[in-house]
Amino acid sequence: MAGPVPMAEVWRGEILESVHYGHAVVCDSSGQIVQAWGDPDAVILPRSSCKMIQALPLVESGAADAFGLEQEHLALACASHQAAAIHTDIVRRWLSDLDLIDSDLICGPQVPRDAVAENAMIRAKDAPCRYHNNCSGKHAGFLTVTKHLKVSSDYVDLTHPVQLAVREAFEDVTGMQSPGFGIDGCSAPNFATTIHGFARAMAHFARARDDGPARNRAAARLVQAMLAYPELVAGEGTACTELMRAMGGRVAVKSGAEGVYVAILPDQKLGIALKIRDGASRGSECAIAAILVDLGALDANDAVASRWMDVKQINLAGLETGILRPAVGFPR
Amino acid sequence: MAGPVPMAEVWRGEILESVHYGHAVVCDSSGQIVQAWGDPDAVILPRSSCKMIQALPLVESGAADAFGLEQEHLALACASHQAAAIHTDIVRRWLSDLDLIDSDLICGPQVPRDAVAENAMIRAKDAPCRYHNNCSGKHAGFLTVTKHLKVSSDYVDLTHPVQLAVREAFEDVTGMQSPGFGIDGCSAPNFATTIHGFARAMAHFARARDDGPARNRAAARLVQAMLAYPELVAGEGTACTELMRAMGGRVAVKSGAEGVYVAILPDQKLGIALKIRDGASRGSECAIAAILVDLGALDANDAVASRWMDVKQINLAGLETGILRPAVGFPR
Repeated sequence: MAGPVPMAEVWRGEILESVHYGHAVVCDSSGQIVQAWGDPDAVILPRSSCKMIQALPLVESGAADAFGLEQEHLALACASHQAAAIHTDIVRRWLSDLDLIDSDLICGPQVPRDAVAENAMIRAKDAPCRYHNNCSGKHAGFLTVTKHLKVSSDYVDLTHPVQLAVREAFEDVTGMQSPGFGIDGCSAPNFATTIHGFARAMAHFARARDDGPARNRAAARLVQAMLAYPELVAGEGTACTELMRAMGGRVAVKSGAEGVYVAILPDQKLGIALKIRDGASRGSECAIAAILVDLGALDANDAVASRWMDVKQINLAGLETGILRPAVGFPR
Repeated sequence: MAGPVPMAEVWRGEILESVHYGHAVVCDSSGQIVQAWGDPDAVILPRSSCKMIQALPLVESGAADAFGLEQEHLALACASHQAAAIHTDIVRRWLSDLDLIDSDLICGPQVPRDAVAENAMIRAKDAPCRYHNNCSGKHAGFLTVTKHLKVSSDYVDLTHPVQLAVREAFEDVTGMQSPGFGIDGCSAPNFATTIHGFARAMAHFARARDDGPARNRAAARLVQAMLAYPELVAGEGTACTELMRAMGGRVAVKSGAEGVYVAILPDQKLGIALKIRDGASRGSECAIAAILVDLGALDANDAVASRWMDVKQINLAGLETGILRPAVGFPR
């Protein structure tokens, strides 16, 4: 069992100040490992990086079509959004179209990550609602399936039909039994898998086309929705949105809490999954950008690539004090 | 050379989700290692954890007495404050007493970490000033020395008398030549040392008494100021302030950016320094609390100990989803 490898380094002047170690796998459409760093069998919780898997039942079950969902809704079902107006307007309308209200969402309230929305809330002395939760699109998706199946509203229960369907889809696309689960920040179960299993799942999404079995078609529709609306999947100024735009809508990427990141490359039929062992987002953003550059999917000379991969450390007085960059030898 | 060791683990349900590795040394008053984890010779930038060293020239030079500084000022010179009113009121008066204005501080402006102060600023649509910078007390101290020595105002320059004095004191108390430096978040030079050197410096502060050489007396006064005003060294709700209060004013602790933490134990004449390699504060807070419990300085049953050492992970809906706790086998 290989240990995690250095993926990102933080330099301050000539001093190596901090290092992020991690595991990563690039998987092809047959499920085989093309490249690996660290331990492909390391068990991880995929956190929000698996939202496109959690959205499979929404499309596969026919719920999305029955309720007339558009690509924007599907992009938000896969999103960790910033709760900017472009996100919350859609989620609120979606809930209203389902004849549901904010408290039907089981996720807790969350202060918007979008600075404009947060400042407006502070000025109005308002408290956040559940639709501000970064996972509210995923939960609106769960509620849509719940309505469609006409089942009880406790849709985050491990034995609820929605979560049983999520788990079945999750184990199918990862190609393995899930070895456990955790309760996520939004209270939904988050099923564990290995880095290899998770990369295999992303390769499933990468090879999915508009024909074939329902699960393939559902996967293809979700990827198309993410690619069509990168600003709905995360938000302005985020790594997800900026990286997807920089790759011209040809590669979908998704962050997860605690240093998880995935990428879906339909052109190359490749899937990528990575986890920074210490859970740092700055490490996972750097590492996914470095792998995407290495695979030729992201142009190393693009300003967005350097913004996330070779991150100038600027202090409060505006001085450049160091850099965060891929570790020596990573990705190759 | 030993690698860093696991110090803190983040569990979600039954899954080990993230791990923080680090180096730490406990040093006695003769400068010898009492206990070590990882590599005592690992080079680190001490960041804000060395502010009490950077404040030595302020006291030693006679500047503090010449300008009538009180314990509150000395505590703030050693502080990474939250920019609550209790902090900024003193810094603003201090500047005014020096016949100086905000722009004489070379640190950049920073949005207050104190939520009340931050929200008030957002509501008033105000921009932060330099006195809001968490390092403004340290900079007011540098300015006091600059005034006292009647030297130029570019006090963060590496060759400025203030920084030459800081470096001389730093190398003296760490017991070694500094192998380099970085520019800190506040634009001051931050001198590198080893974990052992930094723990030795903290042991210097721990054994310092009110008599003896000027440097000893200065160190003793700074420790007394930190212990007398734990709320000025950081702020309400922070690990530094809470841990110092929980230890009844008998142990001084100080955080630093990028996962650094130190402790000064006058009763035991011990100094502690630690660095989480990935730079995570949650890791360094857990690790310093665990070592302090192990040394008998902090009561494991105190609510503050568990708040920082066995940190329940509560999600946005208020559910307990996991725990952050010392790694198995750490500290022993």
